[in-house]
Amino acid sequence: MTYCLALKLDDGLVCLADTRTNAGVDNISRFRKMFTWHIPGDRVIVMMTAGNLAITQAVISLLQENIDNPKEGIETITEATSMFRVAEIVGDAMQFVQSRYAKGFAATGESGSSSIVVAGQREGGTPRLFQVYTAGNFIEATDDTPYFQIGEFKYGKPILDRVITTDTPIDVAVTASLLSMDSTLRSNLSVGMPLDLAVIRTDTLDFEQHRRIEEQDEAFAELSEAWSRELRAAFDTMVQITA
Amino acid sequence: MTYCLALKLDDGLVCLADTRTNAGVDNISRFRKMFTWHIPGDRVIVMMTAGNLAITQAVISLLQENIDNPKEGIETITEATSMFRVAEIVGDAMQFVQSRYAKGFAATGESGSSSIVVAGQREGGTPRLFQVYTAGNFIEATDDTPYFQIGEFKYGKPILDRVITTDTPIDVAVTASLLSMDSTLRSNLSVGMPLDLAVIRTDTLDFEQHRRIEEQDEAFAELSEAWSRELRAAFDTMVQITA
Repeated sequence: MTYCLALKLDDGLVCLADTRTNAGVDNISRFRKMFTWHIPGDRVIVMMTAGNLAITQAVISLLQENIDNPKEGIETITEATSMFRVAEIVGDAMQFVQSRYAKGFAATGESGSSSIVVAGQREGGTPRLFQVYTAGNFIEATDDTPYFQIGEFKYGKPILDRVITTDTPIDVAVTASLLSMDSTLRSNLSVGMPLDLAVIRTDTLDFEQHRRIEEQDEAFAELSEAWSRELRAAFDTMVQITA
Repeated sequence: MTYCLALKLDDGLVCLADTRTNAGVDNISRFRKMFTWHIPGDRVIVMMTAGNLAITQAVISLLQENIDNPKEGIETITEATSMFRVAEIVGDAMQFVQSRYAKGFAATGESGSSSIVVAGQREGGTPRLFQVYTAGNFIEATDDTPYFQIGEFKYGKPILDRVITTDTPIDVAVTASLLSMDSTLRSNLSVGMPLDLAVIRTDTLDFEQHRRIEEQDEAFAELSEAWSRELRAAFDTMVQITA
């Protein structure tokens, strides 16, 4: 499994991904699911992946290969003139890779189902957030629903629903994202540390934070413990109210 | 969908069920999922159902029919000498009904997947809690995991994991159960009011509470609002801690 979430706020973009993959509970590995591209002053792009790992790795590799070995007539995500165009390019790459293995999936009954979250800002544009599906089609986050989750979304959704609106300050949103991940880590063994966090403030075209949070990270452990205490205290208050 | 939960505590049993069923989001109905049998001084039994509604209704009807029209050699849940035996009878009824429709399910590709939670106490025994699966086999709750959930379990699980142990007082457990249901109602449209609540204190062989909580129930609405406020306050504390 996987849990990745991305928030698009007035203040900017927050992206958080875990790093655990599994093929059954007896086959657990660590794979990065967050990929970033940064051209200072021009664009900053974050992608996070869920679903069939072979598919999403192939999509990311294809996108990177086209950047590394430019070919006439093939537009890359680092050249694209808008974030919408970036999402289209990712969708096209998804379609290409899916079609390559479609017969195999049909024959074996396996699923190539995958999704990729694409977040970023290009110079002259606004921060935008997309979710690309298996078919290569995609949706964009709006003010009504300013976040996307892929993978194991249920455990981490309530806190986002209760707290996140488009005008939530970015630091508050980072805390909410980490708590959303904490709830998911607790309840689903197939979501695991370390985490990758990327924070992009609007119009900076740069990362304000771009770091890995390791299993031994003291600040995250303290956050997790404090949240346990606060939730327990909230519940104790409820018990008093209903007594 | 459905959400039912049952807790087995030192103090007794708490059972809570919603009443919404759906075949697609455009076909929503209200069906009772909690069924009770009470012979004062002898036994009290609660069952809650999830999954294929035709299957679970048939199982409950079959159990009731055998009580209403006793047949030589057919043991009923109101005669069974232990709660373990009650669970076996429910499992046998599940097997019987599943086998009756197995060919049809195979032909149509539909699923008869169902589960039934069986909770209760018989005179001379202890309170026990079982979960019966589609195949008629079943598991029993223990002190390590003193609760079962069927249907949409994810949204309501974190509060139970954080709060419920076997020595949790029954009133506290009722509050936790209602909050677990509240989280599920908020996040999954296919779980809906009204609710059915049954509380059985150990060795009373009677219901301490046995009531329907309607959509207009003021106490439940207040509980829900207070929980929103407390969670929000807990989160605000987290924001201060991380600032």
